[in-house]
Amino acid sequence: MSIRIGILGYGNLGRGVECAIKQNSDMELSCVFTRRDPSLVTILTDGVNIYNTNDILKHKEEIDVLIICGGSATDLPAMTPKYAKDFNVIDSFDTHANIPQHFANVDAAASEGKHVAIISVGWDPGMFSLNRAYANAILPDGKDYTFWGKGVSQGHSDAIRRIDGVLDARQYTIPVEAAVEAVRSGSNPELSTREKHTRECFVVVEEGADKARIEKEIVTMPNYFSDYDTTVHFISQEELDRDHKGIPHGGMVIRSGVSGWSKETKHVIEYKLTLESNPEFTSSVLIAYARAAYRMSKEENYGCKTVFDIAPAYLLNMTGDEMRAHLL
Amino acid sequence: MSIRIGILGYGNLGRGVECAIKQNSDMELSCVFTRRDPSLVTILTDGVNIYNTNDILKHKEEIDVLIICGGSATDLPAMTPKYAKDFNVIDSFDTHANIPQHFANVDAAASEGKHVAIISVGWDPGMFSLNRAYANAILPDGKDYTFWGKGVSQGHSDAIRRIDGVLDARQYTIPVEAAVEAVRSGSNPELSTREKHTRECFVVVEEGADKARIEKEIVTMPNYFSDYDTTVHFISQEELDRDHKGIPHGGMVIRSGVSGWSKETKHVIEYKLTLESNPEFTSSVLIAYARAAYRMSKEENYGCKTVFDIAPAYLLNMTGDEMRAHLL
Repeated sequence: MSIRIGILGYGNLGRGVECAIKQNSDMELSCVFTRRDPSLVTILTDGVNIYNTNDILKHKEEIDVLIICGGSATDLPAMTPKYAKDFNVIDSFDTHANIPQHFANVDAAASEGKHVAIISVGWDPGMFSLNRAYANAILPDGKDYTFWGKGVSQGHSDAIRRIDGVLDARQYTIPVEAAVEAVRSGSNPELSTREKHTRECFVVVEEGADKARIEKEIVTMPNYFSDYDTTVHFISQEELDRDHKGIPHGGMVIRSGVSGWSKETKHVIEYKLTLESNPEFTSSVLIAYARAAYRMSKEENYGCKTVFDIAPAYLLNMTGDEMRAHLL
Repeated sequence: MSIRIGILGYGNLGRGVECAIKQNSDMELSCVFTRRDPSLVTILTDGVNIYNTNDILKHKEEIDVLIICGGSATDLPAMTPKYAKDFNVIDSFDTHANIPQHFANVDAAASEGKHVAIISVGWDPGMFSLNRAYANAILPDGKDYTFWGKGVSQGHSDAIRRIDGVLDARQYTIPVEAAVEAVRSGSNPELSTREKHTRECFVVVEEGADKARIEKEIVTMPNYFSDYDTTVHFISQEELDRDHKGIPHGGMVIRSGVSGWSKETKHVIEYKLTLESNPEFTSSVLIAYARAAYRMSKEENYGCKTVFDIAPAYLLNMTGDEMRAHLL
């Protein structure tokens, strides 16, 4: 019998989950929930019902795992604890500083409702966190570095769009190659924010807009750009649509550490992602952890979990024998 | 209370384990077992007893986890099942083809004796296997590539040393950069053995030896060299000792796969190790899994395990709260 997945929220992430289900023969899409009018939403899979989120409890028995595809700012802090009472749930909560509070809220709800909730699933937090954990366990004496990009930051692109005279924008975060090489060498450099990443912006402005003023507003914007070396390119909407439609992302987690009686031996562990689509990759991770949530709920191992609490075997549609024969 | 580690076998790997214990504040070295005369063995840690392996059962109560530092060819297939009856054990069994049989033997012994045994721990098998598993779980539609090196192959170095007229030798396995780049591009190339790695040999020969004959014997040696492009350098013993004393190794596991409704989106996941000492890094992994074996034995989760069966949280000397706050 397939694992029946429910998708809550049908944007880029929800659509990515829908695509990922198709690649996993032990899963099926049960239904999709939306806050919009369901008759106005079209999905890719034939014969699957779309319901309004208000009706979700009526469909409780049709769903083994509910994947909550909402934003971390306001959606997930409310939604994940709410739905963890009635469903096994997965979310991609990524506000690092608020994870302890979110974990506590979700754990209380999931434990009470006897469900499994896995939070902060994706690539950062998620696969990057796992790689930090493994590398820290192996090399307790070392230093972690995380680089992001080259990739599109939606938050930074949005910040540029809010500037007066800007029609559209796309912002890329780019790791500084010299910093990456210094880290790979094992020299454990101290790197400032400016030394680690640059920012490149492609901006479409209104006819006759003051480009000098807009460029200055971008590069001096606190929190977003002022701590970085930022390059601004003014381009046409056609160029933006043609060359910058994708949402690629990725990055690296590197730990450089030492071993030996006198700490005389250096090692470097690097994990690198090169992703053509940030939401589709995140969705693929969510679906693998949905399998784990389903299995852990069968074992009555309830409560809130993160990627740290889940043995890799739970993620794979393979038996232990197959894993040992083919992957070990 | 510290986790008390016993080391069985005191070569490069056993010494590496001894060094790794020093970096982990929740562990202590309890004792070392050797097949040699204990009075002839010197270790680095003060005040720790060295015993003959024949007396190991007398010291059962002094040890929480026994790390078996033996070879995969003949030592571990006999030793790990034997000692898993009386101890929680870790080994680094790395003969991939024989893992299913070894697992079955060790599982029977560990289950009978109510102990935890974790086999095939290290970096390949071990960390590379984990990365294959995670990447396969996330991108079920894709292709795995493993590259080794640049690093010293002890087996290949030994094979050269057995040639008549050879006094000493060191062999490096080197990934072909063009092949690595092709894989990183996401083009999923089909690569032959020769296309993936080259082999470089540094050889010390007897005075007046026939170098042309020795070089020919190396490059045509079946299984070891005949399927590779091999370069042979004849050097002096002084040069070998000066420039080639280390045992560095490493490599990459890369999975290239697709997502999207029509598989139109490419992603590349890469895990890379650059290790100055192969045995010391392996030892550092062994010690992290010793912590997991100790904890799982407290939970009475007995039997044989591999890296696939162990949640990352078991490897770290941190609480769940600390992990979520600092690593997630």
